[in-house]
Amino acid sequence: MTRPIAVATWRFGLPAVEASGRAFQEGGSAMDAVEAGIRVAELDPSVDSVGYGGLPNADGVVQLDAAVMDGPTHEAGAVGALEGFRTPISIARRVMERSRHVFLVGEGARQFALREGFQEETTLTEEAKRRWEEWRTKRVAHQQPAGHDTIGLVAMDSTGNLAVGCSTSGLAFKEPGRVGDSPLIGSGLYVDNEVGGASATGVGEAILRFCLSFLVVELMRNGLSPQEACVQAIRRMVRKGRKFRKLHAAVIALDRSGRVGGYANHDRFSYAVWTPEGAQLIQVKPDPQDTDAWESDS
Amino acid sequence: MTRPIAVATWRFGLPAVEASGRAFQEGGSAMDAVEAGIRVAELDPSVDSVGYGGLPNADGVVQLDAAVMDGPTHEAGAVGALEGFRTPISIARRVMERSRHVFLVGEGARQFALREGFQEETTLTEEAKRRWEEWRTKRVAHQQPAGHDTIGLVAMDSTGNLAVGCSTSGLAFKEPGRVGDSPLIGSGLYVDNEVGGASATGVGEAILRFCLSFLVVELMRNGLSPQEACVQAIRRMVRKGRKFRKLHAAVIALDRSGRVGGYANHDRFSYAVWTPEGAQLIQVKPDPQDTDAWESDS
Repeated sequence: MTRPIAVATWRFGLPAVEASGRAFQEGGSAMDAVEAGIRVAELDPSVDSVGYGGLPNADGVVQLDAAVMDGPTHEAGAVGALEGFRTPISIARRVMERSRHVFLVGEGARQFALREGFQEETTLTEEAKRRWEEWRTKRVAHQQPAGHDTIGLVAMDSTGNLAVGCSTSGLAFKEPGRVGDSPLIGSGLYVDNEVGGASATGVGEAILRFCLSFLVVELMRNGLSPQEACVQAIRRMVRKGRKFRKLHAAVIALDRSGRVGGYANHDRFSYAVWTPEGAQLIQVKPDPQDTDAWESDS
Repeated sequence: MTRPIAVATWRFGLPAVEASGRAFQEGGSAMDAVEAGIRVAELDPSVDSVGYGGLPNADGVVQLDAAVMDGPTHEAGAVGALEGFRTPISIARRVMERSRHVFLVGEGARQFALREGFQEETTLTEEAKRRWEEWRTKRVAHQQPAGHDTIGLVAMDSTGNLAVGCSTSGLAFKEPGRVGDSPLIGSGLYVDNEVGGASATGVGEAILRFCLSFLVVELMRNGLSPQEACVQAIRRMVRKGRKFRKLHAAVIALDRSGRVGGYANHDRFSYAVWTPEGAQLIQVKPDPQDTDAWESDS
Protein backbone atom coordinates (compact mmCIF):
# COMPACT_ATOMS: atom_id res chain seq x y z
CA MET A 1 0.00 0.00 0.00
CA THR A 2 1.65 3.19 -1.22
CA ARG A 3 0.97 6.59 0.29
CA PRO A 4 -0.92 8.56 -2.38
CA ILE A 5 0.57 11.86 -3.48
CA ALA A 6 -0.13 14.59 -6.00
CA VAL A 7 2.18 17.37 -7.22
CA ALA A 8 1.16 20.29 -9.41
CA THR A 9 2.74 23.41 -10.89
CA TRP A 10 2.17 26.94 -9.58
CA ARG A 11 0.03 28.42 -6.86
CA PHE A 12 -3.14 27.42 -8.72
CA GLY A 13 -1.84 23.88 -8.30
CA LEU A 14 -2.81 24.02 -4.63
CA PRO A 15 -6.61 23.75 -5.08
CA ALA A 16 -5.83 21.32 -7.90
CA VAL A 17 -3.90 18.85 -5.74
CA GLU A 18 -6.53 19.22 -3.01
CA ALA A 19 -9.07 18.02 -5.56
CA SER A 20 -6.69 15.18 -6.45
CA GLY A 21 -6.63 14.29 -2.74
CA ARG A 22 -10.43 14.14 -2.65
CA ALA A 23 -10.36 11.90 -5.71
CA PHE A 24 -7.96 9.57 -3.90
CA GLN A 25 -10.17 9.55 -0.81
CA GLU A 26 -13.09 8.50 -2.98
CA GLY A 27 -11.05 5.56 -4.26
CA GLY A 28 -9.90 7.16 -7.49
CA SER A 29 -6.85 6.05 -9.45
CA ALA A 30 -3.81 8.20 -10.18
CA MET A 31 -5.42 9.07 -13.52
CA ASP A 32 -8.66 10.07 -11.78
CA ALA A 33 -6.64 12.30 -9.45
CA VAL A 34 -4.85 13.92 -12.39
CA GLU A 35 -8.08 14.64 -14.21
CA ALA A 36 -9.94 15.88 -11.10
CA GLY A 37 -7.09 18.19 -10.12
CA ILE A 38 -6.52 19.70 -13.53
CA ARG A 39 -10.24 20.30 -14.06
CA VAL A 40 -10.22 22.66 -11.06
CA ALA A 41 -7.70 24.93 -12.78
CA GLU A 42 -9.45 24.58 -16.14
CA LEU A 43 -12.84 25.61 -14.73
CA ASP A 44 -11.50 28.52 -12.63
CA PRO A 45 -12.10 31.65 -14.76
CA SER A 46 -9.49 33.58 -12.74
CA VAL A 47 -6.67 31.34 -14.05
CA ASP A 48 -5.80 33.17 -17.28
CA SER A 49 -3.52 30.51 -18.74
CA VAL A 50 -5.60 27.33 -18.48
CA GLY A 51 -9.03 26.27 -19.79
CA TYR A 52 -12.01 28.57 -19.25
CA GLY A 53 -10.67 32.08 -18.62
CA GLY A 54 -7.49 31.38 -20.57
CA LEU A 55 -6.28 34.20 -22.79
CA PRO A 56 -7.15 33.76 -26.48
CA ASN A 57 -4.95 33.65 -29.56
CA ALA A 58 -4.20 36.63 -31.81
CA ASP A 59 -7.61 36.23 -33.45
CA GLY A 60 -9.39 36.38 -30.07
CA VAL A 61 -10.16 32.65 -30.10
CA VAL A 62 -9.35 30.41 -27.12
CA GLN A 63 -7.41 27.36 -28.35
CA LEU A 64 -6.54 24.84 -25.67
CA ASP A 65 -3.87 22.14 -25.38
CA ALA A 66 -3.95 19.22 -22.94
CA ALA A 67 -2.59 15.71 -22.50
CA VAL A 68 -2.56 12.76 -20.13
CA MET A 69 -0.23 9.79 -19.81
CA ASP A 70 -0.78 6.65 -17.78
CA GLY A 71 2.12 5.09 -15.89
CA PRO A 72 1.23 1.38 -15.89
CA THR A 73 0.09 1.09 -19.52
CA HIS A 74 2.13 3.82 -21.21
CA GLU A 75 -1.13 4.87 -22.86
CA ALA A 76 -1.56 8.55 -23.65
CA GLY A 77 -4.07 11.00 -25.07
CA ALA A 78 -3.67 14.59 -26.20
CA VAL A 79 -5.51 17.45 -27.87
CA GLY A 80 -4.02 20.58 -29.45
CA ALA A 81 -5.52 23.86 -30.63
CA LEU A 82 -8.94 22.65 -29.44
CA GLU A 83 -11.78 25.18 -29.52
CA GLY A 84 -15.09 25.17 -27.70
CA PHE A 85 -14.57 23.13 -24.53
CA ARG A 86 -13.59 24.21 -21.03
CA THR A 87 -12.02 20.98 -19.82
CA PRO A 88 -9.66 19.69 -22.50
CA ILE A 89 -8.01 17.38 -19.97
CA SER A 90 -11.15 15.22 -19.99
CA ILE A 91 -11.15 15.18 -23.79
CA ALA A 92 -7.46 14.19 -23.80
CA ARG A 93 -8.33 11.34 -21.44
CA ARG A 94 -11.15 10.31 -23.74
CA VAL A 95 -8.72 10.27 -26.69
CA MET A 96 -6.54 7.91 -24.64
CA GLU A 97 -9.45 5.66 -23.79
CA ARG A 98 -11.49 5.66 -26.98
CA SER A 99 -9.47 6.76 -30.01
CA ARG A 100 -7.06 4.55 -31.92
CA HIS A 101 -4.86 7.64 -32.01
CA VAL A 102 -2.98 9.53 -29.30
CA PHE A 103 -3.01 13.12 -30.54
CA LEU A 104 -5.84 15.00 -32.23
CA VAL A 105 -5.67 18.67 -33.16
CA GLY A 106 -7.86 21.51 -34.32
CA GLU A 107 -11.17 20.81 -36.00
CA GLY A 108 -10.56 17.05 -35.89
CA ALA A 109 -10.19 17.20 -32.11
CA ARG A 110 -13.37 19.26 -31.85
CA GLN A 111 -15.32 16.76 -33.95
CA PHE A 112 -14.00 13.91 -31.79
CA ALA A 113 -15.18 15.67 -28.63
CA LEU A 114 -18.63 16.26 -30.12
CA ARG A 115 -18.92 12.62 -31.21
CA GLU A 116 -17.97 11.61 -27.66
CA GLY A 117 -20.81 13.67 -26.23
CA PHE A 118 -18.90 16.65 -24.83
CA GLN A 119 -21.02 19.82 -24.92
CA GLU A 120 -19.67 22.95 -26.56
CA GLU A 121 -19.40 25.92 -24.22
CA THR A 122 -18.17 29.49 -24.25
CA THR A 123 -14.50 29.47 -23.35
CA LEU A 124 -13.70 33.18 -23.66
CA THR A 125 -14.50 35.15 -20.49
CA GLU A 126 -15.35 38.86 -20.57
CA GLU A 127 -12.09 39.58 -18.77
CA ALA A 128 -10.02 37.58 -21.25
CA LYS A 129 -11.80 39.30 -24.13
CA ARG A 130 -11.09 42.71 -22.56
CA ARG A 131 -7.39 41.89 -22.28
CA TRP A 132 -7.26 40.63 -25.85
CA GLU A 133 -8.89 43.87 -27.08
CA GLU A 134 -6.35 45.85 -25.10
CA TRP A 135 -3.51 43.82 -26.61
CA ARG A 136 -4.93 44.19 -30.11
CA THR A 137 -5.18 47.95 -29.73
CA LYS A 138 -1.76 48.47 -28.20
CA ARG A 139 0.10 45.52 -29.77
CA VAL A 140 2.23 45.56 -26.66
CA ALA A 141 5.46 43.71 -27.22
CA HIS A 142 6.00 41.61 -24.14
CA GLN A 143 9.60 41.10 -23.12
CA GLN A 144 8.63 37.84 -21.44
CA PRO A 145 5.67 36.30 -23.21
CA ALA A 146 2.62 36.52 -20.95
CA GLY A 147 0.41 33.62 -20.06
CA HIS A 148 2.57 30.55 -20.18
CA ASP A 149 1.62 28.99 -16.88
CA THR A 150 0.56 25.46 -17.69
CA ILE A 151 -0.93 23.31 -15.01
CA GLY A 152 1.02 20.07 -14.85
CA LEU A 153 0.04 17.45 -12.31
CA VAL A 154 1.77 14.17 -11.42
CA ALA A 155 0.03 11.72 -9.09
CA MET A 156 0.65 8.31 -7.54
CA ASP A 157 -2.18 6.29 -6.07
CA SER A 158 -2.22 3.75 -3.24
CA THR A 159 -1.46 0.89 -5.64
CA GLY A 160 1.76 2.65 -6.68
CA ASN A 161 0.47 3.55 -10.12
CA LEU A 162 1.51 6.87 -11.56
CA ALA A 163 -0.21 9.25 -13.98
CA VAL A 164 0.49 12.72 -15.32
CA GLY A 165 -1.44 15.39 -17.14
CA CYS A 166 -1.16 18.98 -18.21
CA SER A 167 -3.41 21.66 -19.64
CA THR A 168 -2.96 25.18 -20.95
CA SER A 169 -4.39 27.90 -23.13
CA GLY A 170 -0.85 28.42 -24.37
CA LEU A 171 0.99 31.66 -24.91
CA ALA A 172 -1.36 34.62 -24.71
CA PHE A 173 -2.24 36.05 -28.13
CA LYS A 174 -0.32 33.28 -29.89
CA GLU A 175 -0.63 32.71 -33.63
CA PRO A 176 -3.72 30.63 -34.46
CA GLY A 177 -2.86 26.94 -34.57
CA ARG A 178 0.19 27.32 -32.36
CA VAL A 179 0.81 24.27 -30.19
CA GLY A 180 3.28 24.41 -27.30
CA ASP A 181 4.92 21.73 -25.24
CA SER A 182 1.90 20.82 -23.12
CA PRO A 183 0.22 18.23 -25.36
CA LEU A 184 3.53 16.76 -26.54
CA ILE A 185 4.36 13.48 -24.81
CA GLY A 186 7.93 13.87 -23.54
CA SER A 187 7.97 17.66 -23.54
CA GLY A 188 5.03 18.83 -21.42
CA LEU A 189 4.67 15.54 -19.58
CA TYR A 190 6.06 12.03 -19.26
CA VAL A 191 5.64 9.09 -16.95
CA ASP A 192 7.04 5.60 -16.64
CA ASN A 193 5.65 3.49 -13.82
CA GLU A 194 9.08 1.93 -13.30
CA VAL A 195 10.68 5.33 -12.65
CA GLY A 196 8.40 8.31 -12.06
CA GLY A 197 6.72 11.20 -13.81
CA ALA A 198 7.39 14.82 -14.71
CA SER A 199 5.61 17.84 -16.14
CA ALA A 200 6.91 21.14 -17.46
CA THR A 201 5.58 24.68 -17.56
CA GLY A 202 6.90 27.79 -19.25
CA VAL A 203 7.48 28.91 -22.81
CA GLY A 204 6.71 25.83 -24.86
CA GLU A 205 8.97 26.91 -27.72
CA ALA A 206 11.94 26.41 -25.37
CA ILE A 207 10.75 23.36 -23.44
CA LEU A 208 9.84 21.25 -26.44
CA ARG A 209 13.30 21.57 -27.95
CA PHE A 210 14.67 19.70 -24.91
CA CYS A 211 11.93 17.10 -24.29
CA LEU A 212 12.19 18.43 -20.77
CA SER A 213 9.79 16.00 -19.05
CA PHE A 214 11.20 12.92 -20.77
CA LEU A 215 14.71 14.11 -19.91
CA VAL A 216 13.79 14.42 -16.23
CA VAL A 217 12.33 10.89 -16.19
CA GLU A 218 15.42 9.61 -18.00
CA LEU A 219 17.73 11.26 -15.46
CA MET A 220 15.71 9.68 -12.63
CA ARG A 221 16.00 6.32 -14.43
CA ASN A 222 19.76 6.81 -14.35
CA GLY A 223 19.71 7.29 -10.57
CA LEU A 224 19.12 10.96 -9.88
CA SER A 225 16.56 12.07 -7.29
CA PRO A 226 13.57 14.02 -8.63
CA GLN A 227 15.11 17.27 -7.38
CA GLU A 228 18.52 16.56 -8.90
CA ALA A 229 16.90 15.47 -12.16
CA CYS A 230 14.92 18.74 -12.42
CA VAL A 231 18.04 20.80 -11.68
CA GLN A 232 20.18 18.94 -14.22
CA ALA A 233 17.51 19.17 -16.92
CA ILE A 234 17.04 22.94 -16.46
CA ARG A 235 20.82 23.44 -16.42
CA ARG A 236 21.27 21.52 -19.65
CA MET A 237 18.64 23.69 -21.30
CA VAL A 238 20.16 26.94 -20.10
CA ARG A 239 23.65 25.89 -21.16
CA LYS A 240 22.42 25.66 -24.76
CA GLY A 241 22.26 29.41 -25.13
CA ARG A 242 21.08 32.75 -23.91
CA LYS A 243 17.60 32.48 -25.35
CA PHE A 244 16.94 29.39 -23.25
CA ARG A 245 17.76 31.33 -20.11
CA LYS A 246 15.46 34.20 -20.99
CA LEU A 247 12.47 32.04 -21.93
CA HIS A 248 10.96 30.86 -18.67
CA ALA A 249 10.88 27.13 -18.04
CA ALA A 250 10.16 25.02 -14.99
CA VAL A 251 9.63 21.33 -14.31
CA ILE A 252 8.27 19.18 -11.49
CA ALA A 253 8.90 15.50 -10.84
CA LEU A 254 7.66 12.65 -8.67
CA ASP A 255 9.40 9.29 -8.46
CA ARG A 256 7.92 5.92 -7.61
CA SER A 257 9.27 6.18 -4.04
CA GLY A 258 7.10 9.28 -3.55
CA ARG A 259 9.96 11.80 -3.60
CA VAL A 260 9.22 15.13 -5.30
CA GLY A 261 11.28 17.84 -6.97
CA GLY A 262 10.94 21.06 -8.90
CA TYR A 263 13.25 23.58 -10.53
CA ALA A 264 13.11 26.58 -12.85
CA ASN A 265 15.36 29.00 -14.72
CA HIS A 266 13.71 31.93 -12.87
CA ASP A 267 12.70 32.78 -9.30
CA ARG A 268 8.92 32.97 -9.70
CA PHE A 269 8.19 29.26 -9.73
CA SER A 270 6.25 27.41 -7.05
CA TYR A 271 4.55 24.02 -6.91
CA ALA A 272 1.99 22.35 -4.71
CA VAL A 273 2.19 18.96 -3.03
CA TRP A 274 -0.69 17.01 -1.52
CA THR A 275 -0.26 14.01 0.76
CA PRO A 276 -2.77 12.51 3.23
CA GLU A 277 -1.14 14.79 5.84
CA GLY A 278 -2.13 17.93 3.96
CA ALA A 279 -1.23 20.23 1.09
CA GLN A 280 1.56 22.78 0.86
CA LEU A 281 3.04 25.21 -1.61
CA ILE A 282 6.79 25.03 -2.22
CA GLN A 283 8.56 28.14 -3.49
CA VAL A 284 11.49 27.25 -5.74
CA LYS A 285 14.67 29.23 -5.23
CA PRO A 286 17.24 28.81 -7.98
CA ASP A 287 20.67 27.80 -6.72
CA PRO A 288 22.80 30.98 -6.33
CA GLN A 289 25.48 29.17 -8.35
CA ASP A 290 23.00 28.99 -11.22
CA THR A 291 21.68 32.53 -10.96
CA ASP A 292 25.23 33.89 -10.84
CA ALA A 293 26.18 31.90 -13.91
CA TRP A 294 22.99 32.83 -15.75
CA GLU A 295 23.34 36.52 -14.93
CA SER A 296 27.07 36.81 -15.64
CA ASP A 297 26.31 35.46 -19.10
CA SER A 298 23.76 38.23 -19.83
CA MET B 1 36.56 19.75 -42.91
CA THR B 2 34.03 17.02 -42.21
CA ARG B 3 32.97 14.51 -44.82
CA PRO B 4 29.31 15.33 -45.60
CA ILE B 5 26.79 12.54 -45.15
CA ALA B 6 23.03 12.03 -45.38
CA VAL B 7 20.94 9.15 -44.03
CA ALA B 8 17.25 8.59 -44.76
CA THR B 9 14.58 6.02 -43.96
CA TRP B 10 13.29 3.41 -46.44
CA ARG B 11 13.98 2.66 -50.05
CA PHE B 12 12.48 5.99 -51.09
CA GLY B 13 15.24 7.50 -48.97
CA LEU B 14 17.73 6.61 -51.72
CA PRO B 15 16.69 9.28 -54.27
CA ALA B 16 16.22 11.57 -51.25
CA VAL B 17 19.81 11.28 -50.00
CA GLU B 18 21.06 11.59 -53.57
CA ALA B 19 19.29 14.96 -53.70
CA SER B 20 20.89 15.81 -50.35
CA GLY B 21 24.24 14.98 -51.91
CA ARG B 22 23.56 17.35 -54.81
CA ALA B 23 22.64 20.04 -52.29
CA PHE B 24 25.97 19.51 -50.54
CA GLN B 25 27.83 19.68 -53.84
CA GLU B 26 26.17 23.03 -54.51
CA GLY B 27 27.47 24.30 -51.17
CA GLY B 28 24.28 23.73 -49.19
CA SER B 29 24.16 23.38 -45.41
CA ALA B 30 22.95 20.30 -43.55
CA MET B 31 19.52 21.96 -43.33
CA ASP B 32 19.52 22.59 -47.10
CA ALA B 33 20.37 18.91 -47.64
CA VAL B 34 17.55 17.82 -45.34
CA GLU B 35 15.02 19.98 -47.12
CA ALA B 36 16.20 19.07 -50.63
CA GLY B 37 16.16 15.35 -49.85
CA ILE B 38 12.78 15.26 -48.20
CA ARG B 39 11.17 17.31 -50.98
CA VAL B 40 12.03 14.52 -53.43
CA ALA B 41 9.89 12.05 -51.49
CA GLU B 42 7.17 14.65 -50.91
CA LEU B 43 6.85 15.46 -54.61
CA ASP B 44 6.96 11.84 -55.80
CA PRO B 45 3.31 10.83 -56.30
CA SER B 46 4.23 7.14 -56.13
CA VAL B 47 5.25 7.46 -52.46
CA ASP B 48 1.87 6.88 -50.78
CA SER B 49 2.89 7.89 -47.26
CA VAL B 50 4.55 11.28 -47.77
CA GLY B 51 3.45 14.60 -49.29
CA TYR B 52 1.80 14.61 -52.72
CA GLY B 53 0.42 11.13 -53.35
CA GLY B 54 0.08 10.39 -49.64
CA LEU B 55 -3.08 8.55 -48.63
CA PRO B 56 -5.79 10.79 -47.19
CA ASN B 57 -7.58 10.69 -43.83
CA ALA B 58 -10.94 9.01 -43.21
CA ASP B 59 -12.71 11.99 -44.78
CA GLY B 60 -10.63 11.70 -47.95
CA VAL B 61 -8.53 14.78 -47.12
CA VAL B 62 -4.72 14.70 -47.22
CA GLN B 63 -3.35 16.11 -43.95
CA LEU B 64 0.43 16.30 -43.74
CA ASP B 65 2.89 16.44 -40.85
CA ALA B 66 6.51 17.59 -41.09
CA ALA B 67 9.29 19.02 -38.96
CA VAL B 68 12.90 20.16 -39.07
CA MET B 69 15.47 20.67 -36.34
CA ASP B 70 18.81 22.42 -36.65
CA GLY B 71 21.84 21.03 -34.84
CA PRO B 72 23.91 24.14 -34.11
CA THR B 73 21.08 26.42 -32.96
CA HIS B 74 18.58 23.91 -31.55
CA GLU B 75 15.95 25.80 -33.55
CA ALA B 76 13.01 23.81 -34.85
CA GLY B 77 9.88 24.18 -36.94
CA ALA B 78 6.92 21.88 -37.39
CA VAL B 79 3.49 21.64 -38.99
CA GLY B 80 0.72 19.18 -38.21
CA ALA B 81 -2.52 18.24 -39.99
CA LEU B 82 -1.64 20.72 -42.75
CA GLU B 83 -3.88 20.74 -45.82
CA GLY B 84 -3.25 22.07 -49.30
CA PHE B 85 0.53 21.98 -49.80
CA ARG B 86 2.75 19.29 -51.32
CA THR B 87 6.01 20.13 -49.55
CA PRO B 88 5.27 20.58 -45.85
CA ILE B 89 9.00 20.24 -45.06
CA SER B 90 9.59 23.64 -46.62
CA ILE B 91 6.73 25.12 -44.58
CA ALA B 92 8.15 23.56 -41.40
CA ARG B 93 11.49 25.16 -42.22
CA ARG B 94 9.73 28.49 -42.76
CA VAL B 95 8.06 28.16 -39.34
CA MET B 96 11.53 27.68 -37.86
CA GLU B 97 12.92 30.69 -39.69
CA ARG B 98 10.04 33.14 -39.54
CA SER B 99 7.51 32.32 -36.82
CA ARG B 100 7.96 33.10 -33.15
CA HIS B 101 6.49 29.64 -32.59
CA VAL B 102 7.82 26.15 -33.33
CA PHE B 103 4.68 24.14 -34.05
CA LEU B 104 1.60 25.20 -36.03
CA VAL B 105 -1.31 22.90 -36.78
CA GLY B 106 -4.42 22.70 -38.91
CA GLU B 107 -6.00 25.85 -40.27
CA GLY B 108 -3.48 28.05 -38.44
CA ALA B 109 -0.62 26.29 -40.21
CA ARG B 110 -2.38 26.69 -43.55
CA GLN B 111 -2.89 30.42 -42.98
CA PHE B 112 0.78 30.78 -42.02
CA ALA B 113 1.84 29.07 -45.26
CA LEU B 114 -0.42 31.34 -47.33
CA ARG B 115 0.91 34.46 -45.58
CA GLU B 116 4.43 33.24 -46.37
CA GLY B 117 3.62 33.00 -50.06
CA PHE B 118 3.30 29.23 -50.49
CA GLN B 119 0.83 28.35 -53.25
CA GLU B 120 -2.03 25.96 -52.53
CA GLU B 121 -2.02 22.86 -54.69
CA THR B 122 -3.94 19.63 -55.10
CA THR B 123 -2.43 17.07 -52.77
CA LEU B 124 -4.75 14.12 -53.41
CA THR B 125 -3.74 12.04 -56.44
CA GLU B 126 -6.25 10.01 -58.45
CA GLU B 127 -4.59 6.82 -57.20
CA ALA B 128 -4.81 7.90 -53.53
CA LYS B 129 -8.44 8.87 -54.04
CA ARG B 130 -9.18 5.50 -55.61
CA ARG B 131 -7.62 3.68 -52.64
CA TRP B 132 -9.55 5.85 -50.19
CA GLU B 133 -12.81 5.04 -51.99
CA GLU B 134 -11.95 1.36 -51.87
CA TRP B 135 -11.22 1.62 -48.13
CA ARG B 136 -14.43 3.57 -47.51
CA THR B 137 -16.49 0.95 -49.33
CA LYS B 138 -14.89 -2.09 -47.76
CA ARG B 139 -13.86 -0.58 -44.43
CA VAL B 140 -11.05 -3.09 -44.46
CA ALA B 141 -9.63 -3.59 -41.01
CA HIS B 142 -5.87 -3.60 -41.43
CA GLN B 143 -3.96 -5.85 -39.06
CA GLN B 144 -0.93 -3.62 -39.43
CA PRO B 145 -2.01 -0.06 -40.16
CA ALA B 146 -1.10 0.79 -43.74
CA GLY B 147 0.86 3.82 -44.80
CA HIS B 148 3.12 4.69 -41.90
CA ASP B 149 6.38 5.10 -43.78
CA THR B 150 7.68 8.50 -42.81
CA ILE B 151 10.70 9.89 -44.56
CA GLY B 152 13.24 10.89 -41.92
CA LEU B 153 16.56 12.36 -43.00
CA VAL B 154 19.62 13.22 -40.93
CA ALA B 155 22.49 15.10 -42.53
CA MET B 156 25.88 16.50 -41.59
CA ASP B 157 27.63 19.07 -43.75
CA SER B 158 31.31 19.78 -44.31
CA THR B 159 31.41 22.23 -41.38
CA GLY B 160 30.26 19.43 -39.05
CA ASN B 161 26.81 20.91 -38.55
CA LEU B 162 23.90 18.50 -38.28
CA ALA B 163 20.24 18.82 -39.21
CA VAL B 164 17.25 16.50 -39.28
CA GLY B 165 13.79 16.52 -40.79
CA CYS B 166 10.86 14.25 -41.38
CA SER B 167 7.65 14.32 -43.35
CA THR B 168 4.59 12.09 -43.66
CA SER B 169 0.96 11.90 -44.63
CA GLY B 170 0.48 9.85 -41.48
CA LEU B 171 -1.49 6.67 -41.02
CA ALA B 172 -3.68 5.99 -44.04
CA PHE B 173 -7.35 6.82 -43.42
CA LYS B 174 -6.56 8.26 -39.99
CA GLU B 175 -9.13 10.25 -38.03
CA PRO B 176 -9.15 13.91 -39.15
CA GLY B 177 -6.81 15.98 -37.02
CA ARG B 178 -4.67 13.00 -36.04
CA VAL B 179 -1.03 13.93 -35.57
CA GLY B 180 1.63 11.24 -35.25
CA ASP B 181 5.21 11.32 -34.08
CA SER B 182 6.70 12.97 -37.17
CA PRO B 183 6.22 16.65 -36.28
CA LEU B 184 6.96 16.10 -32.58
CA ILE B 185 10.45 17.21 -31.63
CA GLY B 186 11.97 14.28 -29.70
CA SER B 187 9.67 11.61 -31.13
CA GLY B 188 9.90 11.81 -34.93
CA LEU B 189 13.24 13.61 -34.93
CA TYR B 190 15.93 15.07 -32.72
CA VAL B 191 19.39 16.50 -33.14
CA ASP B 192 22.07 17.94 -30.90
CA ASN B 193 25.19 19.18 -32.65
CA GLU B 194 27.30 17.96 -29.72
CA VAL B 195 26.06 14.38 -30.15
CA GLY B 196 24.19 13.48 -33.33
CA GLY B 197 20.71 13.17 -34.78
CA ALA B 198 17.97 10.59 -35.16
CA SER B 199 14.65 10.12 -36.91
CA ALA B 200 11.91 7.54 -36.46
CA THR B 201 9.37 5.93 -38.78
CA GLY B 202 6.48 3.61 -38.06
CA VAL B 203 3.24 3.82 -36.16
CA GLY B 204 3.40 7.22 -34.48
CA GLU B 205 1.08 6.16 -31.68
CA ALA B 206 3.80 3.80 -30.48
CA ILE B 207 6.87 5.92 -31.25
CA LEU B 208 5.69 9.08 -29.55
CA ARG B 209 5.13 7.32 -26.23
CA PHE B 210 8.87 6.63 -26.09
CA CYS B 211 10.33 9.87 -27.52
CA LEU B 212 12.25 7.46 -29.68
CA SER B 213 14.49 9.95 -31.49
CA PHE B 214 15.38 11.88 -28.35
CA LEU B 215 16.09 8.59 -26.59
CA VAL B 216 18.49 7.53 -29.35
CA VAL B 217 20.35 10.86 -29.14
CA GLU B 218 20.45 10.55 -25.33
CA LEU B 219 21.89 7.02 -25.57
CA MET B 220 24.55 8.28 -28.00
CA ARG B 221 25.30 11.12 -25.56
CA ASN B 222 25.90 8.44 -22.93
CA GLY B 223 28.46 6.73 -25.14
CA LEU B 224 26.62 4.25 -27.35
CA SER B 225 27.34 4.07 -31.06
CA PRO B 226 24.46 5.06 -33.37
CA GLN B 227 23.76 1.39 -34.12
CA GLU B 228 23.81 0.36 -30.44
CA ALA B 229 21.63 3.35 -29.54
CA CYS B 230 19.00 2.39 -32.14
CA VAL B 231 19.00 -1.23 -30.94
CA GLN B 232 18.68 -0.29 -27.27
CA ALA B 233 15.89 2.21 -27.96
CA ILE B 234 13.84 -0.29 -29.99
CA ARG B 235 14.40 -2.95 -27.33
CA ARG B 236 13.22 -0.68 -24.56
CA MET B 237 10.05 0.04 -26.51
CA VAL B 238 9.31 -3.59 -27.23
CA ARG B 239 9.92 -4.59 -23.61
CA LYS B 240 7.05 -2.31 -22.56
CA GLY B 241 4.45 -4.69 -23.90
CA ARG B 242 3.06 -6.75 -26.71
CA LYS B 243 1.37 -3.87 -28.48
CA PHE B 244 4.71 -2.11 -28.93
CA ARG B 245 6.07 -5.17 -30.70
CA LYS B 246 3.14 -5.40 -33.08
CA LEU B 247 3.09 -1.73 -34.04
CA HIS B 248 5.95 -1.24 -36.45
CA ALA B 249 8.70 1.17 -35.43
CA ALA B 250 12.15 1.91 -36.78
CA VAL B 251 14.78 4.54 -36.15
CA ILE B 252 17.94 5.79 -37.86
CA ALA B 253 20.83 7.72 -36.32
CA LEU B 254 23.95 9.62 -37.32
CA ASP B 255 26.54 10.81 -34.84
CA ARG B 256 28.93 13.74 -35.13
CA SER B 257 31.76 11.38 -36.09
CA GLY B 258 29.77 10.35 -39.17
CA ARG B 259 28.82 6.88 -37.94
CA VAL B 260 25.33 5.67 -38.85
CA GLY B 261 22.87 3.17 -37.45
CA GLY B 262 19.35 1.87 -37.89
CA TYR B 263 17.09 -0.67 -36.24
CA ALA B 264 13.46 -1.79 -36.26
CA ASN B 265 11.06 -4.12 -34.49
CA HIS B 266 10.32 -5.85 -37.82
CA ASP B 267 12.28 -7.19 -40.80
CA ARG B 268 11.04 -4.86 -43.53
CA PHE B 269 13.12 -1.83 -42.67
CA SER B 270 15.85 -0.37 -44.84
CA TYR B 271 17.64 2.96 -44.92
CA ALA B 272 19.76 4.86 -47.40
CA VAL B 273 23.16 6.45 -46.84
CA TRP B 274 24.84 8.99 -49.09
CA THR B 275 28.51 9.95 -48.84
CA PRO B 276 30.74 11.58 -51.46
CA GLU B 277 31.70 8.00 -52.47
CA GLY B 278 28.13 7.15 -53.42
CA ALA B 279 24.75 6.09 -52.11
CA GLN B 280 23.63 2.69 -50.84
CA LEU B 281 20.59 1.06 -49.33
CA ILE B 282 21.08 -0.88 -46.08
CA GLN B 283 18.62 -3.64 -45.26
CA VAL B 284 18.10 -3.97 -41.50
CA LYS B 285 18.00 -7.49 -40.11
CA PRO B 286 16.73 -7.72 -36.55
CA ASP B 287 19.06 -9.60 -34.23
CA PRO B 288 17.88 -13.26 -34.01
CA GLN B 289 18.05 -12.89 -30.23
CA ASP B 290 15.42 -10.13 -30.51
CA THR B 291 13.16 -11.87 -33.01
CA ASP B 292 13.22 -15.05 -30.90
CA ALA B 293 12.31 -13.08 -27.78
CA TRP B 294 9.65 -11.07 -29.61
CA GLU B 295 8.08 -14.16 -31.17
CA SER B 296 8.18 -16.37 -28.08
CA ASP B 297 6.20 -13.64 -26.34
CA SER B 298 3.38 -13.73 -28.94
